[in-house]
Amino acid sequence: MNKIIISISGLGYVGLPVAVAFSKNNYKTIGYDINKKRVNELLKNEDITGEVSKKDLEKSDITFTSNYEDLSKANFHIITVPTPIDKFNKPDLSLIECACAQIGKILKKNDIVIIESTVYPGVTEEIAVPMIEQNSNLKFNIDFFMGYSPERINPADKNYKFENIKKVVSASNNKTLQILEEVYGSVVKAGIYKASSIKVAEAAKVIENTQRDLNIAFMNELVKIFDALNISTNEVLEAASTKWNFLPFKPGFVGGHCIGVDPYYLIHKSQQAGIIPDLLMSVRKINDGMSIYFSQRILKLLNEKNINFNHSKILLLGLSFKENCPDIRNSKIIDLINELKSFNVLLDVFDPIVNSGEVKKEFGLNVLTQPKRGKYDLVIIAVSHQFFKELGIEKIRSWCKKDGSIMDLKSTFHQNLVDYTV
Amino acid sequence: MNKIIISISGLGYVGLPVAVAFSKNNYKTIGYDINKKRVNELLKNEDITGEVSKKDLEKSDITFTSNYEDLSKANFHIITVPTPIDKFNKPDLSLIECACAQIGKILKKNDIVIIESTVYPGVTEEIAVPMIEQNSNLKFNIDFFMGYSPERINPADKNYKFENIKKVVSASNNKTLQILEEVYGSVVKAGIYKASSIKVAEAAKVIENTQRDLNIAFMNELVKIFDALNISTNEVLEAASTKWNFLPFKPGFVGGHCIGVDPYYLIHKSQQAGIIPDLLMSVRKINDGMSIYFSQRILKLLNEKNINFNHSKILLLGLSFKENCPDIRNSKIIDLINELKSFNVLLDVFDPIVNSGEVKKEFGLNVLTQPKRGKYDLVIIAVSHQFFKELGIEKIRSWCKKDGSIMDLKSTFHQNLVDYTV
Repeated sequence: MNKIIISISGLGYVGLPVAVAFSKNNYKTIGYDINKKRVNELLKNEDITGEVSKKDLEKSDITFTSNYEDLSKANFHIITVPTPIDKFNKPDLSLIECACAQIGKILKKNDIVIIESTVYPGVTEEIAVPMIEQNSNLKFNIDFFMGYSPERINPADKNYKFENIKKVVSASNNKTLQILEEVYGSVVKAGIYKASSIKVAEAAKVIENTQRDLNIAFMNELVKIFDALNISTNEVLEAASTKWNFLPFKPGFVGGHCIGVDPYYLIHKSQQAGIIPDLLMSVRKINDGMSIYFSQRILKLLNEKNINFNHSKILLLGLSFKENCPDIRNSKIIDLINELKSFNVLLDVFDPIVNSGEVKKEFGLNVLTQPKRGKYDLVIIAVSHQFFKELGIEKIRSWCKKDGSIMDLKSTFHQNLVDYTV
Repeated sequence: MNKIIISISGLGYVGLPVAVAFSKNNYKTIGYDINKKRVNELLKNEDITGEVSKKDLEKSDITFTSNYEDLSKANFHIITVPTPIDKFNKPDLSLIECACAQIGKILKKNDIVIIESTVYPGVTEEIAVPMIEQNSNLKFNIDFFMGYSPERINPADKNYKFENIKKVVSASNNKTLQILEEVYGSVVKAGIYKASSIKVAEAAKVIENTQRDLNIAFMNELVKIFDALNISTNEVLEAASTKWNFLPFKPGFVGGHCIGVDPYYLIHKSQQAGIIPDLLMSVRKINDGMSIYFSQRILKLLNEKNINFNHSKILLLGLSFKENCPDIRNSKIIDLINELKSFNVLLDVFDPIVNSGEVKKEFGLNVLTQPKRGKYDLVIIAVSHQFFKELGIEKIRSWCKKDGSIMDLKSTFHQNLVDYTV
């Protein structure tokens, strides 16, 4: 193969670090995003996702563009666009299809196209390939070749990064597999695992997050059971965790664009194959229902304290889908807020990590710049940002009324320091 | 409290190692079992469960008895009887009730009764206490005291033993909790964890095995999905396991008296409290259904090879509920055998670990002493005994007909060495 020139389509949490890593390793790298605003920010070395520092962007030599025709200069095309779900919780593959159509239009003989987005088994060969063929008049596995290599980026994780996470690769033939191994292997220090087929690699990725979803759903079901039995779930989990092989998951919201989404991809494909995946569907039902469940618990607490829901003052700490991460997409806390607001509680939100302009635009919510002392009947800790931990429980308590309470949904502080936990 | 004299009611997988451990630490120890045969064997220093060696039994100084009145000499009564389920999958607490009644009859003022059996939250206080009060005319928490300290024995595990597994203790008042901490702490080197209440300790135990059941059910659901998609589950799991936080569970049968039973205890109590535990019920449904699922797969395989089910010759390797363990109680492999036999296949069973007399008595099955060379259309590896691994795949293959196949349900050997895996 000629000299490898990399293109990355989709410069979000996943694509940008990949582009930076290749560029750092002296690959000529073209970074494409359909979103002009994002590209303009990147041209100014600004990454609002917080995954790549200004310094690293300055040092890198990526050609950022929002014109897909610029992709034609590359021969190793990596697709890292989001694969969300629609409002019926079905896979929304429109961004993959769009990326494949654009790449198809500029594709040259012998080019390789690699999908890194999470998909269900079959998407690469059944959806991406026909879309590329249609737009390119090139023949799959004769004129161009495919790979699938799942991203394993863990947003906001400072320990596990693109370069030190073992990379699974798969390809449409052996020669392409070898090229993928060499190209990714030159950048990913943790090593390369060659999957036996594209479908196996697709399946491996989608079950990783699904397993997490499952284990959190178990914790959430335990919360419901132990609440009904008047037992503290936190205390039970602490005792169980003294067993060497107990897995220390925590109850809570499952939002974001991975854990709460990927299982729907597997459910979709499974149903298409005639298997009704009872377990996965129970998992999703439980985790998607936790916002309503927690809102009921909050209302019950106000009621016990003889506080009228109407105009009760609640402060919610944390809005992003994950701790220490500014991303608010698919955050389940919005559902909690909406449910509480339907009871006319006066709810303020404080989250110094998120972008308040984005919150205003997405949800029509104002994020406080600083909560007021002594104002609230109840403070709810909904996301365990390091920021809140460092603030300390006394500072947080200062925002409560004299007889106000703190409810910690995420075990941010030890249970003895707050009034209510799970 | 006076000098501690220990009694253990129930000398099975759990009770016998506990009795031996206390005796070894110079506690006067009385070991009681309702089963005279078991007691007679122990008097001859024979443990058919294989948990305690003849040498350790010879060295120990336990008073073995099948007369419950002998328990009267003790003041620290540990109950380690089985807590199985009935044929409707409901908790069968009759053995706990029987043990409590017997202890009640001989109970003295200031005695302590500790339950180690797995139960649902509430059994100690709601079932055991009234039963003891009724039979003793002593008053709970005035005349006698209770503790709950879940057993964490892992049958056939040579690394994790009673003394080096951290022990959770809980009690009906602080003074009793302190005594439990001292007494257990003098024997268990791994340390003691004091739970905040008896219910919390009961709950902690029941969720430990339930978590395992859940994760195996996930693997089993994946087998069904990937079978339908013609993807090798083994290959997918191998690829996924290269992620640092993927949990390496395996698909398979869930039998025995813990993992497949404990969740039913939690389901029972949960339903009593008005919570329908969808997730746990899905888990049980999947895992209890795997025998039928695997039997269908086996039949499909015979069919593909154009072998008439009637009089096809199948050899099944492994019958116990767990590898390297002679215990056949609640082994799910019996369901597989019965299903296959309903198609008139000629099925032989080989398992050098189990007691063939017990198998004959329990299931009416003859266990081979040695399989014949070249006899079988199909050999199924159903339990991963170390014995089979050491035997090697070539030896196992020698039992097949010339065009016979090996199906490895437990990933005993690498997938390339067998004809079919999950």
